[in-house]
This record gives sequence, structure tokens and C-alpha cells, in this order.
Amino acid sequence: MIKFGVIGYGYWGPNLVRNFMNAPGATVLMVCDKREERLKLVREQYSEVEVVTDHQLLIQHPQIDAVIIATPVSLHFDLAMAALKAGKHVFIEKPMTETTVQARQLIEEAERRHRVLMVDHTFIYTGAIKKIRELLDADELGDIYYYDSVRINLGLFQHDVNVIWDLAVHDVAIMDYILPFKPVAVAAHGLSHVPHQPENIAYLTIYFDQRIIAHIHVNWLAPIKIRHSILGASKKMVVYDDLDKNAPVKVYDKGLSRPPTESDLHEILLRYRFGDMWAPHIDGTEPLRLIAQHFSDCIRNQTRPKTDGIVGLRTVNILETATRSMHQESKILTLGEI
Amino acid sequence: MIKFGVIGYGYWGPNLVRNFMNAPGATVLMVCDKREERLKLVREQYSEVEVVTDHQLLIQHPQIDAVIIATPVSLHFDLAMAALKAGKHVFIEKPMTETTVQARQLIEEAERRHRVLMVDHTFIYTGAIKKIRELLDADELGDIYYYDSVRINLGLFQHDVNVIWDLAVHDVAIMDYILPFKPVAVAAHGLSHVPHQPENIAYLTIYFDQRIIAHIHVNWLAPIKIRHSILGASKKMVVYDDLDKNAPVKVYDKGLSRPPTESDLHEILLRYRFGDMWAPHIDGTEPLRLIAQHFSDCIRNQTRPKTDGIVGLRTVNILETATRSMHQESKILTLGEI
Amino acid sequence: MIKFGVIGYGYWGPNLVRNFMNAPGATVLMVCDKREERLKLVREQYSEVEVVTDHQLLIQHPQIDAVIIATPVSLHFDLAMAALKAGKHVFIEKPMTETTVQARQLIEEAERRHRVLMVDHTFIYTGAIKKIRELLDADELGDIYYYDSVRINLGLFQHDVNVIWDLAVHDVAIMDYILPFKPVAVAAHGLSHVPHQPENIAYLTIYFDQRIIAHIHVNWLAPIKIRHSILGASKKMVVYDDLDKNAPVKVYDKGLSRPPTESDLHEILLRYRFGDMWAPHIDGTEPLRLIAQHFSDCIRNQTRPKTDGIVGLRTVNILETATRSMHQESKILTLGEI
Amino acid sequence: MIKFGVIGYGYWGPNLVRNFMNAPGATVLMVCDKREERLKLVREQYSEVEVVTDHQLLIQHPQIDAVIIATPVSLHFDLAMAALKAGKHVFIEKPMTETTVQARQLIEEAERRHRVLMVDHTFIYTGAIKKIRELLDADELGDIYYYDSVRINLGLFQHDVNVIWDLAVHDVAIMDYILPFKPVAVAAHGLSHVPHQPENIAYLTIYFDQRIIAHIHVNWLAPIKIRHSILGASKKMVVYDDLDKNAPVKVYDKGLSRPPTESDLHEILLRYRFGDMWAPHIDGTEPLRLIAQHFSDCIRNQTRPKTDGIVGLRTVNILETATRSMHQESKILTLGEI
Repeated sequence: MIKFGVIGYGYWGPNLVRNFMNAPGATVLMVCDKREERLKLVREQYSEVEVVTDHQLLIQHPQIDAVIIATPVSLHFDLAMAALKAGKHVFIEKPMTETTVQARQLIEEAERRHRVLMVDHTFIYTGAIKKIRELLDADELGDIYYYDSVRINLGLFQHDVNVIWDLAVHDVAIMDYILPFKPVAVAAHGLSHVPHQPENIAYLTIYFDQRIIAHIHVNWLAPIKIRHSILGASKKMVVYDDLDKNAPVKVYDKGLSRPPTESDLHEILLRYRFGDMWAPHIDGTEPLRLIAQHFSDCIRNQTRPKTDGIVGLRTVNILETATRSMHQESKILTLGEI
Repeated sequence: MIKFGVIGYGYWGPNLVRNFMNAPGATVLMVCDKREERLKLVREQYSEVEVVTDHQLLIQHPQIDAVIIATPVSLHFDLAMAALKAGKHVFIEKPMTETTVQARQLIEEAERRHRVLMVDHTFIYTGAIKKIRELLDADELGDIYYYDSVRINLGLFQHDVNVIWDLAVHDVAIMDYILPFKPVAVAAHGLSHVPHQPENIAYLTIYFDQRIIAHIHVNWLAPIKIRHSILGASKKMVVYDDLDKNAPVKVYDKGLSRPPTESDLHEILLRYRFGDMWAPHIDGTEPLRLIAQHFSDCIRNQTRPKTDGIVGLRTVNILETATRSMHQESKILTLGEI
Repeated sequence: MIKFGVIGYGYWGPNLVRNFMNAPGATVLMVCDKREERLKLVREQYSEVEVVTDHQLLIQHPQIDAVIIATPVSLHFDLAMAALKAGKHVFIEKPMTETTVQARQLIEEAERRHRVLMVDHTFIYTGAIKKIRELLDADELGDIYYYDSVRINLGLFQHDVNVIWDLAVHDVAIMDYILPFKPVAVAAHGLSHVPHQPENIAYLTIYFDQRIIAHIHVNWLAPIKIRHSILGASKKMVVYDDLDKNAPVKVYDKGLSRPPTESDLHEILLRYRFGDMWAPHIDGTEPLRLIAQHFSDCIRNQTRPKTDGIVGLRTVNILETATRSMHQESKILTLGEI
Repeated sequence: MIKFGVIGYGYWGPNLVRNFMNAPGATVLMVCDKREERLKLVREQYSEVEVVTDHQLLIQHPQIDAVIIATPVSLHFDLAMAALKAGKHVFIEKPMTETTVQARQLIEEAERRHRVLMVDHTFIYTGAIKKIRELLDADELGDIYYYDSVRINLGLFQHDVNVIWDLAVHDVAIMDYILPFKPVAVAAHGLSHVPHQPENIAYLTIYFDQRIIAHIHVNWLAPIKIRHSILGASKKMVVYDDLDKNAPVKVYDKGLSRPPTESDLHEILLRYRFGDMWAPHIDGTEPLRLIAQHFSDCIRNQTRPKTDGIVGLRTVNILETATRSMHQESKILTLGEI
């Protein structure tokens, strides 16, 4: 039986506890939060789970095998490092750390101690993203042209990170998983509309080692919620709308039949291909359930998680560079080697 | 009776002829196109309209009062200048010219000869944009935060201009009309996926003399058509979806009730304002009908059109600078003075 | 060259003239309407077409081969009969006649004189309905369970017929074309909300010679426009939304995997089949263009149109019986033999 | 502290326990289900709640004040009667009973013993329905013309009741709450597509003591989920789409400006009124939370619940009569007096 300790019982905490509690051969032993009223919620719901306000008690607890860190980002590194040093396996909410330097240190510490280090890139475990990855692996889409994503809504301004770290992290993680290309440079434009607060609107552009462009619009101050990505390609194109519960992934058999060469508009028009649309059935299993299982399996079998520290580091590298670009007149910055 | 001559009978030409033909106190006398098969269409539909392949015959025709130019952009300047010099009033399709230098020359020539010079910024004459302008004029929205627009679809690659000149021109013209702020700088990221062709995907960011950001995504290679703009603001926010025929303009009474100040997520959440949505009835009159009337009225009364040469110049200035940015590593470029 | 005469230049007339004018090997010679202002529109648009207010002049015109009748329904029979007796081929707008008696007489007269008699059941010539028919012909859907249609909007109250004759006629015609079953009985519920006017809301139920039910909701007083049909079946189900321009026909691989037999809800749930959705590309050719061609071809080759008088009669039979049911306490009435 | 016992821990049970557990001044003491695996779920989630398989132990438990019945409909009457006779207050899932006779007996027993008898008509406690009722109370809509509802999806065939009892019950309850008119007659058409099973598709028509018609389409075998109601009226019309989370209630300022009187189609068209659409913000509080509070308050204060036995009886009366109509050739049946 693997025993988990969860640090941080905020917005995401209850989902983590519920899923890690029910993972096969695993349970949650202890939850830590500084806020007494949050611990009260744990007690009401899970009378058998211990609660503490001091994370040291959790990290040093001899029966706990793995520590789940769901605090604000600024605490990720210190808690994860302390847990690794205490010999625990570690699962960290996205984004993994505030800097690539921190991410590298955690990776090294985990390697040294043979502990599992996993990052919660939730989307990688959804049926929708798995289906898109399958389409790419089966070469259904042809040459990839672009990835364009809009991830906006009203709400949940954060204070320690800008909107890139909160929302764009999802798209960066998705691209890392589905695209077989290496990002080489990034630029970002953004603005804060609330004095002394991090940017609440931002536009990221990512360049790759191929003729591909990626772009992400993230925004905490939009009147409507949009979760919409387009994968442009030569054979088929994919639209992924996470809010469309009936058909989140749509595959369009549309595109250029061949490059236009002449100036007659009517003729050019004929060279487009307008075919069927197809919405594959998407497995609706809650991703966190699969994540809890996967982390448990990795601990048991001493295997590498799909979203390990390296994946987390690559993602942090892009977020960090994007933020730097935003503070350097939106210059295109080359991504450092990992 | 004002008599029009139309040069260029391509995609948009039939709409122009139909509307200028029916404008009160006006008619279309002649249509010019180099392509015989296009002129055949004119003859079939409008037996009373003269057709020519040589634009000189049209421009020099003594009975024609005003010339409508609906050719590829690269011909706009020469044709418009010739028409002005021949003493005609001139109506030019968007974008007005290929360069600001050309735009300035046309403005000067029109001033010197007291001719009306009008640009076809169609959206300015739609019920939707007029309603949004009204909301802004009545200070219904509060402080403006951002303008974000997505204008994408599959189709109609152009060869003499990139996607910015073809599609972003609409949003630049809309912003020029509705926003009471001065754009000061622009940057653009873009890519061409067809060898030797102009960029077919681009992302523009426009900065203003206030804490406002504008962003436009234009794309000729998208599997779905999107025409979606958001105007973020402090009191109310507007979503304009040109494809939603029932409710193209939606006004959301949503936003921050006051800037968040503390770190407790739950408390912050409470400070958002989630109010009603309102979709005002939008006048559905075909904008080109109003445009034909407006141009006729301006000729008759020697008044300035709402979308005159200056407006056209301001728009070309942004498109030109955006294209330059795209070719200079997406640097933010200051907009020259008009 | 087949020469058409069109009687009635109301809402639909301009579409008819435009399409029959452009049918290969055919033209429109004359248009008749009692309203001078409508004829003025014809003159402005088609200077070569003759216009008359007296339909006798059209029907008796020696050069006219075929008469197109687009008047209110109450005039269909007299005009069509006169035209047939004058030796013309006849094309009638839907619904064909006010009564089955009239429809039968027209069929007989057309047979006797070897004239083509065609009814404008527009939907039969749309890409969407042709695709659905193909799916049924290829046995893609399995056993048919039901056809459910909603056809509502605000507008265009008619005075000589109730909403069933105006709107349900489309669905009755569609079912006649796609379903390989014989309707045997019909019932209708309805109400008029405007004094002394025909019913503006109605619900039709149609029973077949199989375990199938069809239902149609038609309504002239709805705040939104809906054109939505569902074809329930055992293998795949079809949703046809005529207002969804991107994907009007959607095919769902969903249903019962096998009949539920036990009482455990959870288990039953597992017996449903939730598969892919597929939206075939739909040919967007204007149906009236195909109709004009088809009618011309039938005249030239003396062949039966797809929507001939018999089809028109079957449709009128259902509308007539439904109206009778509505006036007889909504009783289920057996459909008389055709 | 009010103590609840819950009988039936199926699909809806967990929601009931969670909400009644957290109602102020109340708790859940015991849960009863015949299925051991369901009780296991209770134990895992709520270690402090007692579980039993024998409902007698629950009903006779001296500390339990009120019994919540969430079993199949066929058990409602016996369990509720036993609970009332044991002196408990009773809360029953919809529909209240299988027959009006049973409903009347429960009402009488509750009256005699001064116990609270409440039915779970969930929608009455939603923000959307409360808003629609407010609009009607404030006479915002004018004369009511019709209520039309579509409530269809794939799934959850029931064995002891037909689809009317499962789904139409919601619309009947909503109408009972919002419409100030008395239903006088009902007819229903329906069909079963699974041998030996109750009807899985049905169409209900309800007539009132005014010129109003109501119609409900319910269906367990539809490829898509629809929850869509229209309230037609003279001043404003309401569309309620329960699946549109952003704007479930839309109010349209549309209709007839005055009854059409002439035959000119164009003129009639002008007499329609096309105004704004307005989507009021809808309170999103979980209705079951309000229900648990309301039932608790009624017990404490010995007051009548909004959805008491009489409301439940009126609803059962319509469902029962509709089912009878379906089995009597869909005749319109007068509703017996309550």
C-alpha cells in the first residue's frame, strides 16, 4: 500500500485527495494546509485522514512514501527538495517550479536518490489529447503547419505568477507531448490591467526547428470562457474545444489541394479541399484518476512517469523565457539548451 | 444623377455594381475588367451597362462622375491617381494602397482637386460596429482594457499581399473607428506555409498611448471560419461574433468588482462580478447599400466621407508597419506620424 | 430552347426566375403578377423578360412551353389546370393543391395530355437530404425508430393556409423521399393565437405500417429559428440541422448495444454504445438550380420528375388529414388510399 | 439537529446524502439500500453514517426525524406511508407516486399526523426557473401563448415507468410552478422500440382553461442531449436551455407588433417586432442544497413546502392521464379534479 501526503488543500486539493485516495493499492494518509478552515473540510469529508498545519510533520512522516505538492508555485521548489531529501517520491502541480535552475536541481536530486519525480500536466492524461497524439503518430494529419490556442476566462487572478504560468502552461505541456518538433525560440506580448499585479493578458509565439509556428492567447479578464485549439496541417486539421462535451475533438478533411499558382481567384478557390468532418468518441475518464494510478505504478515499478521532471523542466524553460521576452520589449528569445 | 464607373469585376465587383446601381439618384454606367468572361457576366445581368477592357476608356469617360476601384491592391494607386487627375471622385476597396506614401499622394491630389476620396472599410457601416461605437460613446463599457480579434478561415490565398493586408485590415479599420486612442507601435509574427507566397498566418499586436493592448489573429489556412472579437473593459465587455446571425453583439456585465489585493483564492473569487448578458437588436441593412448612399451624398454635398483618405492612410500605416515588423524579427516598431 | 412563364412574383418568385433563366437550354419568357410594383422589380432586373398582370396572356402564350406557379395555394389548382389544358407543362410550388381531389385531377389531366407535372419539394434536391437518403439506401442506419422534426421561427403568417401547409409540408415531403415506409395514420394538435386566423402552432404525429413514429412541430410564433430533425435508428442516428452551415448532417454511432434486461441502473448504462460522430461533406449546390435543370430535362426527355404529381398528392393527403384531425379533437385519422 | 434517513442509494442518492448532510442544523444518520456494493460506497465516503439493508430499521429508528425516499417509483407509496405512520416527515423523489390514489392517501396521512410531505421537484429550486417565474409575476411577458419543451437524450431506460414518468415529470412540474393557468386535458402519443418495455419516446399535449397549448417531447433514444423549452407570449418570449451554462435563460423582445390583417406578404413582415435579447444572470446555487434547507426549515417551523404533496399529486395526475391517453389511441382526456 503506497501512502501519500498532500501539501496544499486549495482549489485543486480536494480533487487530488479524492483521486489519490481511490488509486488501487494506495491511500492518502495526511493533508497539510496552513489554513485551519481548509483542514476542517478535510476532516468533515475524510475522518480517517490526518491533518496538520506544519508541512515538516508531513514530509518527515516515516510512513508516507510520496508527497503531493499543491501549493502556490513559489513554494514548489523548497517543499519538493525537502521531500526528496527525506527520501519521498514527489508529485508537483504544474508549473513544476519558478525557474529552470530549480527544476534542474529537483531532477538531479530525484536521480541521485532514485525517487520518482512527476509533474501534474493534467491534459496529457485526457482522452482528447491522447486521441490527438494518436492521430499524429498514425500520420493522419500530414505536415504540421501551426498550433493555435485560446485559453481565456474571467477569474482567479494569481499574485505570485502571471497568466502565462497559470494558463499557457497547459498549452506548452500539450505541445511538448503531441508535437515531434523542438521549440527553439519564444516571444510574448502582455499587459497587466491591475496595478502592481502580474500580467493578466498575454500572447505567446513559439518557433520550432521546422516551418511551424505556435501561438497561445491567455487571459484572466475575458467575459466568456474559451478553451479552443487548432492544429493546422496539410492533410487534415484538428479543432479541440475542451468545452464541447459532445465532440471535443473534431478532425477536418480540409486544406489546400495543392499550392495556388495563378492569379485567377475563381480557379484558386477550386484548389481547396472541403471534405468530411469527424468527431471521434473521446474517452471521458477523469485524468486525475489515471494520473494517480500512473504515479503509483511508477513508484511501485521504479519507472519514469510520462510527465517526469524533464518534461516539467522543458515547460518551465518556455514559460520563463516567455516572461523574459515580455519584459524585454517582446523580443524573440532563443530557448536555452535543456 | 451621379454616374459611376467600376474597375474590377472579381469577387466583390457584383456586390458593388448591384448596390451603386440602386443608390438613390445614382447609377452605374460602365464596368471595366480585363477578363472577357467577367464582362460577359455583367452583360447577362445588366444589359444597359457598358463594358470595357481598357480602364482608360472608363477613367476618361466624360459622363462618369466617380470611379470605383475594386482591383488587386497593387493597381489601386495608379488607377486612383489617374481617376483623380481626370477629375473623378474615387472610391477604393480596402486596403487603400500598398504604401503610406501612395496613400498620402492620393489624399493630396484629392484635396487639390476638391474630389471625394473614400475607402471601402465595410465594417464601419455595419449595424454591429455602429452599435459598439454607440456603447463606447455612451461610456457604457468603462475603461477599455484590450481588443482581441480572430479572423480566420480556409481560403482565397492572395498573391500580391499577405494575410495581414487581406484580413487584419478589417480589424485595424474597426479599431480606428471605435477606439478613442492613438496606436503608437505594432509588432507582428507570421509565417508562410506555401513556398514563394506571402504569409498566410499572422499575429499582430498593437500598442496605444494608453494601457491598452490590441491583438489580431489572421489566417487563410484554418479548418473553420471564425470572426470573433472581444472588447475587454472595466464596466462591461463586448463580444462580437459576425457569424452569429441571431446575436452578433453581446454585452456582458462582468468583470472585476475591484482589484484583488489578498492572496486567499476563495476571497478573490468573490470579487468578480457576474451579471446579465444583453444582445441588442442589430440593424441588418447591407452595409454596401449605406456605403453607396454615403459616397453619393458626399459627392453631391461636397462633404468628407466617414472613411476618407486619412482613415485609409492610418490603416495602411499600421499594415505596412506590421509587415515590416514581421520581416524584422517581429520587433515592436513605432508607428510613424501621419 | 424551353421557354418558361412564371405566375406569381412574391417571396419565392425572384429565386425561381433567376434559376429557370439560367437553366441550360432554357429561359424565362414572361412573368405574371397582379401587383404592378412586383412587375417593376422584374423589369429593373431582367429587361428582356415580358411582364403581364393577366395570367391568361401567359397561359395562352403560344411560345411558352411550361408554366411555373408560385402564387398563394388557393390559386394553384385553377392556374395549373388551365395551363395543362392549354398544353403546357406545369411546375407548382409546394403544397401542390388545397385538396387531394384537386391533386388527383391535375395528375389525371397531365397524364391525359402527356405533360410533365412537377411539384417544388425543394429539400429533396438539397445535398443534405440526398446524403441522408444515401445513408438509408446503404443500410448504414439499421432499423428506423422515429423521425422527429422542429421547424419554427417568427414570421410570415399566412392567411389562406395554417402553419401545417406552410412548414410541415417540408418534413412530410422529406419523409416521403427518405423513408421506405408507408404512412397509415395521422393526428395533429394545434392552436391559433390570432383571432380569425389559421393555426400558427401545430404538432403532427404520423404513424406508419411499421413500428415507427414521426412527429413534426411547426410554429410561426417562435422567438428563434430552428430547423432540426432527428432520425432515430438502431445502428446509427442522424441529426440534420439546416441552419448549421458547417455540418448540417451529423451521423452518430450511438444507441442501445442491446436491449436492457435487468434493473441495475449502472449495468444498463454500460449497454449503451457511445461512438464517433461524423459530419459528411454536403454538396452546397442551390437546390433550385438542380430543380430547374431537372424540370427542363423531364420536359425534353418526357420523363417523370422525382417529385411528380403523385408525390405531391401523397403529401397533400397527409396535410389535409392532419388539418382534419386538428378540427376533430386531434383524433388519429387513417390516411385514405392514394 | 434534524436527523435524516435516506432509503435508496442509486444514481441520485449520493447527491441527496451530500446535501442533506450539509444542511444547517441537520445531518444524515442512516442510509438504506438492498445492494451491499452501494452501501460500501457510503461507508467509504461517510464513515460516520450507519448503513442498513432493511428499510424497517431505518423507518423505525427512534432518532430519525425524516425519511428521504430515493427508490424506484414503484416503492414510493409503501415506504412513504410506512414512514408517515411511524411519525416521520417524508421527502420523496419525483414522481411522487405511481397513481393519484396513492398520492391522495399520502397527503391525507401527512395531514392527519401533521407531518411535512415534500416532493423533489428539483427544477422549482433552480435559479433559471425562479427567474422565469419572476418574469411572469412581473408581467414582463404579456399573454402566454404556449409552452414547448424538448427533453431528450440517450440513456437510462427505466423498467417500471415509461419515459413520461421519468422525463416529462420535470416539465409538468415546471409548468405547475410558473403558469397561472389550470390544465384541463391531456393527450399523448408514444412508442416503445424495445419489446416488453415501456414507451421510450412520447409526445404530450396539455390543454389549459385558456387559449394556451403545452407540448413536451421526451425520448430516451436520442443521439444528442437536448433540454430546451420555449415560452411563447405576446410581449416577450423566453428560451430556456438548461445545457447552456453561460446563458440558460434568454428573453427575446420579439413577436407580433399587431395581428396581420392583409394579404401582402411584405407588409405583414413589417409588423413583426425584432428587438433585443437579454440573458439575465442566473443564480447557480445547487438546487438540492436549497431543497435540503427548505425541507429542514419546513420541519422546524411546521410550514408547507413549496413542492408539497398537493403539487406532487397534480403532477402525477397529468402523468397518469397522459399514460392513459397513450393507451387509448391518444385521445384527449379531461383531467380529473384534484
